[in-house]
Amino acid sequence: MAVTGARTSLRPAPGETISGRPLDVVYEGPAPPREPPGEPPYTRGIHATMYRGRPWTMRQFAGFGTPADTNARFRELLEGGQTGLSTAFDMPTLMGYDPDHPLAAGEVGREGVSVAHAGDMARLFAGIDLGEVSVSLTISGPAPAALALLVVAAEEAGVPRARLRGTLQTDILKEFIAQKEWVVPVRPSMRLACDLIAFCADEMPLWNPISVSGYHIREAGATAGQELAFTLADGLAYAEELIGRGLPPDAFLPRFSFFFDFHIDLFEEVAKIRAARRMWATLARERLGARDERSLRLRTHVQTSGVSLTAQQPLLNVARTAVEALGAVMAGTQSLHTNAYDETLALPTRESATLALRTQQMILAETGAAGVADPLGGSWLVERLTDELCREAAERIAEIDARGGMVAAVEAGLPQAEIADAAYRFQRAVEAGERTIVGVNDFRDDEEPPPPLHRPDPGAERGQAGAVGAWRAARDERRAAAALEGVRAACEGTLNVMPPLIEAARAGATIGEMCDAFRAVWGPYRDPGTW
Amino acid sequence: MAVTGARTSLRPAPGETISGRPLDVVYEGPAPPREPPGEPPYTRGIHATMYRGRPWTMRQFAGFGTPADTNARFRELLEGGQTGLSTAFDMPTLMGYDPDHPLAAGEVGREGVSVAHAGDMARLFAGIDLGEVSVSLTISGPAPAALALLVVAAEEAGVPRARLRGTLQTDILKEFIAQKEWVVPVRPSMRLACDLIAFCADEMPLWNPISVSGYHIREAGATAGQELAFTLADGLAYAEELIGRGLPPDAFLPRFSFFFDFHIDLFEEVAKIRAARRMWATLARERLGARDERSLRLRTHVQTSGVSLTAQQPLLNVARTAVEALGAVMAGTQSLHTNAYDETLALPTRESATLALRTQQMILAETGAAGVADPLGGSWLVERLTDELCREAAERIAEIDARGGMVAAVEAGLPQAEIADAAYRFQRAVEAGERTIVGVNDFRDDEEPPPPLHRPDPGAERGQAGAVGAWRAARDERRAAAALEGVRAACEGTLNVMPPLIEAARAGATIGEMCDAFRAVWGPYRDPGTW
Repeated sequence: MAVTGARTSLRPAPGETISGRPLDVVYEGPAPPREPPGEPPYTRGIHATMYRGRPWTMRQFAGFGTPADTNARFRELLEGGQTGLSTAFDMPTLMGYDPDHPLAAGEVGREGVSVAHAGDMARLFAGIDLGEVSVSLTISGPAPAALALLVVAAEEAGVPRARLRGTLQTDILKEFIAQKEWVVPVRPSMRLACDLIAFCADEMPLWNPISVSGYHIREAGATAGQELAFTLADGLAYAEELIGRGLPPDAFLPRFSFFFDFHIDLFEEVAKIRAARRMWATLARERLGARDERSLRLRTHVQTSGVSLTAQQPLLNVARTAVEALGAVMAGTQSLHTNAYDETLALPTRESATLALRTQQMILAETGAAGVADPLGGSWLVERLTDELCREAAERIAEIDARGGMVAAVEAGLPQAEIADAAYRFQRAVEAGERTIVGVNDFRDDEEPPPPLHRPDPGAERGQAGAVGAWRAARDERRAAAALEGVRAACEGTLNVMPPLIEAARAGATIGEMCDAFRAVWGPYRDPGTW
Repeated sequence: MAVTGARTSLRPAPGETISGRPLDVVYEGPAPPREPPGEPPYTRGIHATMYRGRPWTMRQFAGFGTPADTNARFRELLEGGQTGLSTAFDMPTLMGYDPDHPLAAGEVGREGVSVAHAGDMARLFAGIDLGEVSVSLTISGPAPAALALLVVAAEEAGVPRARLRGTLQTDILKEFIAQKEWVVPVRPSMRLACDLIAFCADEMPLWNPISVSGYHIREAGATAGQELAFTLADGLAYAEELIGRGLPPDAFLPRFSFFFDFHIDLFEEVAKIRAARRMWATLARERLGARDERSLRLRTHVQTSGVSLTAQQPLLNVARTAVEALGAVMAGTQSLHTNAYDETLALPTRESATLALRTQQMILAETGAAGVADPLGGSWLVERLTDELCREAAERIAEIDARGGMVAAVEAGLPQAEIADAAYRFQRAVEAGERTIVGVNDFRDDEEPPPPLHRPDPGAERGQAGAVGAWRAARDERRAAAALEGVRAACEGTLNVMPPLIEAARAGATIGEMCDAFRAVWGPYRDPGTW
């Protein structure tokens, strides 16, 4: 039987306190303007009943070694009560290189799973019902190629693409801004991302084709206001490109999704998520012309902050992550990843990954923080911070507009420079001791027994490199080459690249080969490195 | 040099977010009535600037084995940045028996430190400057005897009693209600407690002679509303007894202190602490006739909830305690103990105790939750819960008044029965699976490696039992006997028992002997055991 998760355990949030005090679903103030949860501009949440109706999706990001290694971890997580999957790919896959490519050496399966072709994708989700479990693929540059592999693997498992539910990251702008895992330059990258979104709008009604991501922007050192502004501006850039192609906004905006960081500064972060919802609803209606209420609802995944964790005294990271996860729930996220306490040292072990998931379950079942929609609503502090962040982000977006929009701003290195500046100021404050990080620049301990760490399997790289060769040797080479030529032709023309990519995946083409086709047409992107 | 704590590290809470956003000290709403922090009824906190002025006292409860064992742990905690001490005594000491008493067998130094005489007390605080470090003694039945030992030990270290700063628990009513560590019956216990408070009002201006404690009431299974009501009613009982003796309320109320639990249900707990402050200010002024603003300010220590922790998956307790500690800080506590994650299994190890302290330091330095007074003020949820808890507690206090006050209610077993009822209802909800506790009745894990545990030293009991015999053999027996006779005479009459107790401590009398004097006059208390 296919694993679909230990769903029976996950009940909605309790409707009374631990003392038996009944709780309303929503509390409201006497003074206008009221912003009820579930109504535009959704400051207080996109659902009227929030987690009383249904808990958020507990979606732990995981991946290492071979597809079979990661498949085993996925099954453990689902059996432990996780409710969605999220795939971490290794660096070669994220850059669009196969495991036997010279640039992949030493990196195959190290920080994520190595996936090269439809067979790998099938093994990654073997025994997991892709028509039931929501699956996230955290990949952007090669996103169209990865989606093609998933569609083919699902087809072979008997799940048509229209039934696939999950999320593809796809957000290439944040790669140029912060994460730096790209395949081709900015404008062709936008073309590929928008081809993918347009294809999904037609063919994959349950799929979120993009996860507009502030996470990596923040982790690179951005402030909360920068993360908010740049993420929304990225979302606008994709939407405006699609509208420019003639797509009506309500054809694709209902399936836009977002991805924010939850850093350690609790109230500012809650305010940031509330501000994001309020602003997106307004921008989608007033600027993009959306009318469907589903287009106005900012749905978001949240991950607790990796950079807030420390290699020193790693168990204190359990406490940091608990505070951040609590905050993400108080902010009304739709989906949450909690970091494992040892992630600053290595990939999580089975034990640390389970503990991170248990933290979410504990917050849902025990803390009472999930039983009321927008529990911080009305807090004078949080309402003020929400207003301030909206104002700051609006100013930053106006500045980006004045520079010709986000694509031009990214090409000019504007957001990159602003983030570098913020990161430098923060680092200086830590070094000067103006900002304390426990265990790093104060409250240090001398003796620290190292926690048990995940040990990567050195055989995974050799195995994957050999396997991709065998895969290529076994396929119909002529059919594969013809299909890849079809991809190349689509890139050179204006037809949507997704159908030829799916044909290439079916013919056994690899991610590296598909990305080579992109690179052949547009050239590789080189980091200007000037900021 | 005497250890006074690593104070240089502990700076007030940051005044800006991690993104550099400046924060006001207080945020306020547009609508009256405003309750500014630092002004009666202190709903929003007793200080106008809260932790921007000064952090709360990080006061970890610790004690095991011999006084020398605990002294070593105290020094470690102070060197680790703890800012106050709190002493856990073993069961024999808490019941007023010396370590060589037959009833003490198997319990000496097991769950706390064994302290029998002034020499033990001196060793407990050896090398710690009692004129600088705030010291808490968590003991109630034998509290007058314990204070006498401390006064003598401090005198011998050159610190006059008027310079001692710290807290004695003294709250005997909560022993009859919940914790069940008593010496003599209810009414003579009240007499002893009030003698102690009256003595301190005259002679020890920096000392908190009582910590009116809801903690043990809550841990015994009370609801938040019961904890709030019974604790305030206990406080009223002591105050009214002292006023009945003719003391003006402002002579002793400024040094009353409180001690609440912080359970896992976040918002109800924050509301409980806010409600406690608002109600005490009102009761102190309107019912007790206080006029000094210091009498109206409810100062409280908070401990995170022991019963909310689980023996299963103990590392998840780090996350629970972090949520609770965060809540205690958002509620504006003056002093905080965070539980170690392994406390459900054994006494904390050095590592787990340090991690618990680091959790407080992290919340202060990193989360931003300490930078604004009453950050949840205005939250529609928290304001409503605060009002509801005030109403519920007022009704419960009226009911206790109708039964003749708290002393009579305790003698009749009224609060005991109500708590037993609440505990039963909660236990049933857990057993029926209506309330989930992660790792206990859901999300269980099969394989759990046990954490490293604190191993009690079996030699401590033999050592302490032998040492108290040697101590008695070495003293001037006639002087000790005469002093103990003086204690007995004071108990039989109406003179304050503290001066003869201090004389007895100076003469080498032990806690067991002093409590024997109490028992000789009033008889031991026997648990009615009917509820």
